[in-house]
Amino acid sequence: MMQEDYERRLERAGRAAAVAGLAGLLVTPGPDLVWLCGYRPPAVTERLTALLIEPGRRARLLVPVLEQPDAEQAAGAGVLEVSGWSDGADPYAELATWMRPEGRYGVSDATWALHLLGLQRSVPGAAYAALTEVLPMLRAVKDAHEVARLAAAGAAADATYEKILGVRFEGRRESEVAADLARLLIEHGHSQVDFTVVGSGPNGANPHHEAGERVIEDGDMVVLDFGGLKDGYGSDTSRTVHVGEPGAEERKVHDIVREAQQAAFEAVRPGIACQEVDRVARRVIKAAGYGEYFIHRTGHGIGVTTHEPPYLVEGEHLPLVPGMCFSIEPGIYLPGRFGVRIEDIVTCTESGGRRLNETAREMAVVR
Amino acid sequence: MMQEDYERRLERAGRAAAVAGLAGLLVTPGPDLVWLCGYRPPAVTERLTALLIEPGRRARLLVPVLEQPDAEQAAGAGVLEVSGWSDGADPYAELATWMRPEGRYGVSDATWALHLLGLQRSVPGAAYAALTEVLPMLRAVKDAHEVARLAAAGAAADATYEKILGVRFEGRRESEVAADLARLLIEHGHSQVDFTVVGSGPNGANPHHEAGERVIEDGDMVVLDFGGLKDGYGSDTSRTVHVGEPGAEERKVHDIVREAQQAAFEAVRPGIACQEVDRVARRVIKAAGYGEYFIHRTGHGIGVTTHEPPYLVEGEHLPLVPGMCFSIEPGIYLPGRFGVRIEDIVTCTESGGRRLNETAREMAVVR
Repeated sequence: MMQEDYERRLERAGRAAAVAGLAGLLVTPGPDLVWLCGYRPPAVTERLTALLIEPGRRARLLVPVLEQPDAEQAAGAGVLEVSGWSDGADPYAELATWMRPEGRYGVSDATWALHLLGLQRSVPGAAYAALTEVLPMLRAVKDAHEVARLAAAGAAADATYEKILGVRFEGRRESEVAADLARLLIEHGHSQVDFTVVGSGPNGANPHHEAGERVIEDGDMVVLDFGGLKDGYGSDTSRTVHVGEPGAEERKVHDIVREAQQAAFEAVRPGIACQEVDRVARRVIKAAGYGEYFIHRTGHGIGVTTHEPPYLVEGEHLPLVPGMCFSIEPGIYLPGRFGVRIEDIVTCTESGGRRLNETAREMAVVR
Repeated sequence: MMQEDYERRLERAGRAAAVAGLAGLLVTPGPDLVWLCGYRPPAVTERLTALLIEPGRRARLLVPVLEQPDAEQAAGAGVLEVSGWSDGADPYAELATWMRPEGRYGVSDATWALHLLGLQRSVPGAAYAALTEVLPMLRAVKDAHEVARLAAAGAAADATYEKILGVRFEGRRESEVAADLARLLIEHGHSQVDFTVVGSGPNGANPHHEAGERVIEDGDMVVLDFGGLKDGYGSDTSRTVHVGEPGAEERKVHDIVREAQQAAFEAVRPGIACQEVDRVARRVIKAAGYGEYFIHRTGHGIGVTTHEPPYLVEGEHLPLVPGMCFSIEPGIYLPGRFGVRIEDIVTCTESGGRRLNETAREMAVVR
């Protein structure tokens, strides 16, 4: 990213704050800060680092004085005012002098409670709201450059999946296959691996099982769900494979999930509410008699993190907008038996959905 | 740790909450949760996971329903009530039914603002305070078992330092020496490397410089600051080495820092205020004429994290208590020239300080 990219994002954030009736945005270390100014502190600690964005004003970054040299090296630092505070000083009082005493501020979701409580004490008349609640779209709509990076991460995930089909499953521990997935993601250009789920047999029925010491057996269904960051943008793909030839019920459940995933994908278009995509997937699974076994939402946004707004979930009325990128990942989980999940990253375009990872969704047989 | 360890910690936390006049403690994923019940969720996301501890009552853990099987596997889960909430439900409203409408609660420092704001909305009459502000001692006083683990991590850091003295510095990039440090920490039993600072020449004058592409030269001072977790407990050691024979000023500055570090170490005893240890170190450096170049606090606590209370800093009146473990790490930073920092982990015993890492503090000459 260039300095101009950050300048444009900061301006866009300031305008969005004004439209939302906010005096400003307070952003602490994490993906929002990276996206807005390219700054990632050496470590996230109890020492306050905060970016204040106000409509029509140059953004200001307050950092611990000993981290100031790092902050000034950030890719977007040239368009900010950077100030340092020293150990022993009160950074909340310092920030308070920049703020409007009765203003309403959006704060990044993952801001520490320690810091929010410090601000609430120093600026008791101000009001605060979580950034994804007041500005859910801030990072949700990606520009073409960002969609291209997500597609490149998706291609790396595709290549990882193609390769994993060739490794041995039977007789090896889930954790060993998970290590293969991590190695393959790195080999295909990921700088960071966020998750490598290998849920074999009954473990697959726990949708957030990671990978354990269970030895995979012939006849197991195996849920694979893997992703991370490549060049700063996320990948997240799930496929469910079978060790040896699957039986009739396993085929049936897999077919239902595949049909639900395809139906939800086809529902993607500008203007449709997020919850409607979830409903479409859920309708297919319910009609097949498995409704009670689809126990999570249909999807989540992806960008500089692997998990962000928009959420495809009942109650999310936000309409899809071209440039939004998100997972579509329905599943069926039969307790004590097996699970099936199929997940692609999809972007909303003017003409409908486009998948950013392309691997076949048919159930693969592994050995 | 055994289930009894968690039971004892939960009871201790409940008693401490009562003494502090709190209705309870709300703990979200992170080191507090690991320490209190051994639970580390697969990922920290926007989905609320929260442990409620109330005096004299069994602790309750609220988790996303799809993570409930993981939560029930946690080492301390047997002494908790675990409940799940489903996507689409309001977890803050659920938590509110457990809470006292006008109670005062301590919340873990790193709880997301998103969650704190959700709670403030659902339980508007309750008051909240950061856990380290209301119960700074909660994890600060280690039992003998914990001190032994910290000493084992310190021994691994010592062994890492001994080995790094033998690697080539001159002509190699800081990042290469940093990679050596990381490899050595892992070889000596660390499961996680948190930082490997290599600050050569002028980079050493930025106390939180990590390691960059600068090629180390003959005549450089090099600040090394490295640590991570071994068996769940932290290490954190700094030494400053010189490539080739040091000059008179470099020797002098190193001697001053070493003297300051020793004086602060000797000041450690039960009952002395944290800020007094900082003052002792600062006095030595000021008397030598370098006061303005010691730009950070003298130390921080260490335990299941590498950075936690107590803080040895001006304004921290908390008295040292036997079992507290913390860094003592004064430094002098000469902008554009070089820096010196010397850091040991120290525990307060009945009879004074005991270092948990033992390596010599004399300036080593490397090649």
